[in-house]
Amino acid sequence: MTVEPNEYMQQAIKAAEAAAARGEVPVGAVVVESATGRVLAAAGNRVEELNDPSAHAELLAIRAAGQLLGEPRLPGCDLYVTLEPCPMCATVISFARVRRLFFGAYDPKGGGVDHGPRIYEQSTCHHRPEIVGGLSESECADLLKSFFRDRR
Amino acid sequence: MTVEPNEYMQQAIKAAEAAAARGEVPVGAVVVESATGRVLAAAGNRVEELNDPSAHAELLAIRAAGQLLGEPRLPGCDLYVTLEPCPMCATVISFARVRRLFFGAYDPKGGGVDHGPRIYEQSTCHHRPEIVGGLSESECADLLKSFFRDRR
Repeated sequence: MTVEPNEYMQQAIKAAEAAAARGEVPVGAVVVESATGRVLAAAGNRVEELNDPSAHAELLAIRAAGQLLGEPRLPGCDLYVTLEPCPMCATVISFARVRRLFFGAYDPKGGGVDHGPRIYEQSTCHHRPEIVGGLSESECADLLKSFFRDRR
Repeated sequence: MTVEPNEYMQQAIKAAEAAAARGEVPVGAVVVESATGRVLAAAGNRVEELNDPSAHAELLAIRAAGQLLGEPRLPGCDLYVTLEPCPMCATVISFARVRRLFFGAYDPKGGGVDHGPRIYEQSTCHHRPEIVGGLSESECADLLKSFFRDRR
């Protein structure tokens, strides 16, 4: 497999940009089959569009990948997301048994991996993915900064 | 409003029993409009059926209520659920601005309210519902116990 993690993150960034164009918080996520490098699903936030507070990029991408594979667990998959997952998404990533989690910007205010409840450090968490944070960090962070600056 | 919390919990228990009949972990949830007492949505777990690790009763009920009301936030609503919500569901309950959370059995192994990451005690949690735990507790717990006993 010759694809670099940064190339998948670029696809997540594209999904985040599309979310921004829909008026959603610009976060994007991509689920990749580890063995083949095949992209199974890509999604951006759709909370406002779907009237669904759970419609974060990660959760939508995991759901789409599960439906594609016909199983609710994705132990052979990696997830790329532009922002540190919130506690909801960190938990569903664990439930899905995702193998590796790559995320872009850190989120001290709302993140649940390196901040807040630090979901994977809880003794009640039964699957902790391998984690790489800070991938394409400044590019991912700039997306969010410019989105919120434009809204003020 | 003359309906008692326990009557809504009975509806959540019915949704949990229906989940068990589908081979799902028997958890059920009901979203109620606080002012009118109207039941907006009821759901049981559908993780296996939908190949969706996020398809917990609470998340499905909140999504259905949001779609019914045409908004992703439910500040005028209460949620009844047969089991202490996991960290994923506790977080989406907060995102949805649910007014009051009533739950049945406590879940020391997987709960995220009184156990594990204690989502609502985090400084990064921006909305904490009013919480009543232990409603119809033994009835809700018995549902889970008999489900897992039968599967062994």
